[in-house]
Amino acid sequence: MSLTIGDAAALSKTITEADVLLYSAVSMDTNPVHLDAEAARESPFGARIAHGMLSAGLISAVLGTRLPGPGTVYLEQSLQFRRPVFLGDTITARVTVSGFDERGRAQLETVCSNQDDEVVIRGNALVIPPGGATS
Amino acid sequence: MSLTIGDAAALSKTITEADVLLYSAVSMDTNPVHLDAEAARESPFGARIAHGMLSAGLISAVLGTRLPGPGTVYLEQSLQFRRPVFLGDTITARVTVSGFDERGRAQLETVCSNQDDEVVIRGNALVIPPGGATS
Repeated sequence: MSLTIGDAAALSKTITEADVLLYSAVSMDTNPVHLDAEAARESPFGARIAHGMLSAGLISAVLGTRLPGPGTVYLEQSLQFRRPVFLGDTITARVTVSGFDERGRAQLETVCSNQDDEVVIRGNALVIPPGGATS
Repeated sequence: MSLTIGDAAALSKTITEADVLLYSAVSMDTNPVHLDAEAARESPFGARIAHGMLSAGLISAVLGTRLPGPGTVYLEQSLQFRRPVFLGDTITARVTVSGFDERGRAQLETVCSNQDDEVVIRGNALVIPPGGATS
């Protein structure tokens, strides 16, 4: 597969109670703001929020399954957590090829948005596409 | 709690088959290199590997539960995936306060290492400590 600047792919998922519980177990991130409705009510967010890294995982899913897809080697990811994700929000991770570095590795813009089209995470990824760096 | 440059905390976890399966379900990242032993054998890694973002979640766990701890607002994270994590590896996420920006937000070095003390992920985080930015 030949990657071109502007190529894009996305994937969406509703973040549920089960996701937050399973992610807490896998990550050991048992911060009360994710699990304790009473503590979360006192937090700046006013309610339980999903782990930021849980939504960030959707970016990895797009990279590893859609664009560039299986065989991609994930090298770098930057993440800015811009807004909280609440349970029940539907998050879309969108990945767009933005360039290639001097070694032919692909640079990608990575954005997660919620059902109101508000950006919740913004960042960039660097990967070796399947089959190795291009050009 | 007052944060000081050099303050550090860590958390360790063995990455198991169950972690990889649960993380695949939560993240939708069903890349065969994580789930298909035959496909993984043909990959550059030679065997199934855990999702990079799964280990990265341990960094969030340290930030949210230990240092700075509950009440921390996670703003930014950079990640360099340096080495693969294989099933059965024990990953230690270590977070060290490295500075404060002009707005009093805490900058932290974030490193994940395996049981052989090899760095698997290196990066930096930016957070608002519990109670708000300092200084």
